Amino acid sequence: MFSEYRHKRRVQFYETDAAGIVHFSWYFRYMEEAEHALWREAGLSVAQPGSDLHWPRVAASCDFHGALFFEQEFEVWIRISAITQKTIRYTSELVRGETKIATGTHTVACVRTRPNEPMRSATIPPEIAGRFQVAPGADP
Amino acid sequence: MFSEYRHKRRVQFYETDAAGIVHFSWYFRYMEEAEHALWREAGLSVAQPGSDLHWPRVAASCDFHGALFFEQEFEVWIRISAITQKTIRYTSELVRGETKIATGTHTVACVRTRPNEPMRSATIPPEIAGRFQVAPGADP
Amino acid sequence: MFSEYRHKRRVQFYETDAAGIVHFSWYFRYMEEAEHALWREAGLSVAQPGSDLHWPRVAASCDFHGALFFEQEFEVWIRISAITQKTIRYTSELVRGETKIATGTHTVACVRTRPNEPMRSATIPPEIAGRFQVAPGADP
Amino acid sequence: MFSEYRHKRRVQFYETDAAGIVHFSWYFRYMEEAEHALWREAGLSVAQPGSDLHWPRVAASCDFHGALFFEQEFEVWIRISAITQKTIRYTSELVRGETKIATGTHTVACVRTRPNEPMRSATIPPEIAGRFQVAPGADP
Repeated sequence: MFSEYRHKRRVQFYETDAAGIVHFSWYFRYMEEAEHALWREAGLSVAQPGSDLHWPRVAASCDFHGALFFEQEFEVWIRISAITQKTIRYTSELVRGETKIATGTHTVACVRTRPNEPMRSATIPPEIAGRFQVAPGADP
Repeated sequence: MFSEYRHKRRVQFYETDAAGIVHFSWYFRYMEEAEHALWREAGLSVAQPGSDLHWPRVAASCDFHGALFFEQEFEVWIRISAITQKTIRYTSELVRGETKIATGTHTVACVRTRPNEPMRSATIPPEIAGRFQVAPGADP
Repeated sequence: MFSEYRHKRRVQFYETDAAGIVHFSWYFRYMEEAEHALWREAGLSVAQPGSDLHWPRVAASCDFHGALFFEQEFEVWIRISAITQKTIRYTSELVRGETKIATGTHTVACVRTRPNEPMRSATIPPEIAGRFQVAPGADP
Repeated sequence: MFSEYRHKRRVQFYETDAAGIVHFSWYFRYMEEAEHALWREAGLSVAQPGSDLHWPRVAASCDFHGALFFEQEFEVWIRISAITQKTIRYTSELVRGETKIATGTHTVACVRTRPNEPMRSATIPPEIAGRFQVAPGADP
């Protein structure tokens, strides 16, 4: 059962903006990278070839406590903070050394897509739900 | 006094992802585009040449209600929902025709940067604060 | 018959980098935006719903003559410089006022995709080829 | 003396587009990542804190031979193919296993920036030029 992952990362130049720091939109991408790394750790993929399941975000939020600069190394510590039949909620902390840079959450829904049909909400299949559990202490 | 702006936009191909829809990180960029357009409407710029003021985000959130596809036209309706001495909070609605696609908020802080010094929180100068006001009915 | 388009654009903040100017990777996106706008002008889309045609790039190049800064307005003047049975080549000039910022080219191939099959080179259908022609004077 | 680097990488979801493959603009970012990794390997940074040197691209090109899909692992093999007093030219190969995905080149110029002055071409300082040399066999 998997519930958390520590994703290590270095800031790339194209992630910075004219204020000299990482553009805030990247924090959401960092959190998604960590989510996908957690799935790989669990032997899974959010985009299994041949599967018609997708995992669109239904909500995302981030509080920014500090800045990240070019070439700095940091870590995204992602934890599963809630699981329902059709959604998974993640809580992430971005940390550079001892410095907390940001705290974020995002919630994904399981949907099924068929060609020329709208996305449809779906129950998370047991072979996926059975691999994950809520991390102890993760804020719901 | 300016308090809101309707920013029109078309989805570009590089904004879509392998799920065939706009990647969620773009919604935060769309909201920032609208913020900067509101400032221009007010005769201002968030990055006035020669100014040492910056406007980093301290918080951002988004609820995703629908998807956007390549080449679709949509609108970001941004409103100022709160102003304090050092921060501005914006609320945005992304709408495609009559369909609500997303609702988001972001809060920016006024900071002063000096070479080789850390960013420092600053009071919003009167020539900026005096141009903006909270939009009537905007959720605080 | 369509052969060129002038795409107007303003630099967004997230397109700049820590050097204070637009990151070079964006110039390629600007050129693609202009290409897609040319297609819309011709009543077409590079991603027609229901179509299995795609237009991947087989080559792209850019010479950078000047910089673009946040909020600057510029124009991408795209012209079709060559058409073969299976490819289209575009030449673009990025201009800010009278200043030439960059010159680029990109070549796209017509391919057909079927589920679970590799992309396959395809002849450009006549309803598309018949809408475009090489721009007079465009460098091949 | 450093002349090449093999930069390992995994495709992230936000790098893909609605055609299901990595958007071509990312290949240029991958090549830049490899360049910066080569500099770090040489104990250098393209954005040394306190330095007024920048390294804007003056030209970039790429030939695309294959596609990259979400989560695929690949390598950017970057080599210095030419050095002049004021420029460095890099040649890169993107490879996934035994499959060549793309070949690219980019040329950077050494410039000096001073506040409120235009960028000015500059000679590469000896402490930088002395760390790099052209890779044997790299196509100039």
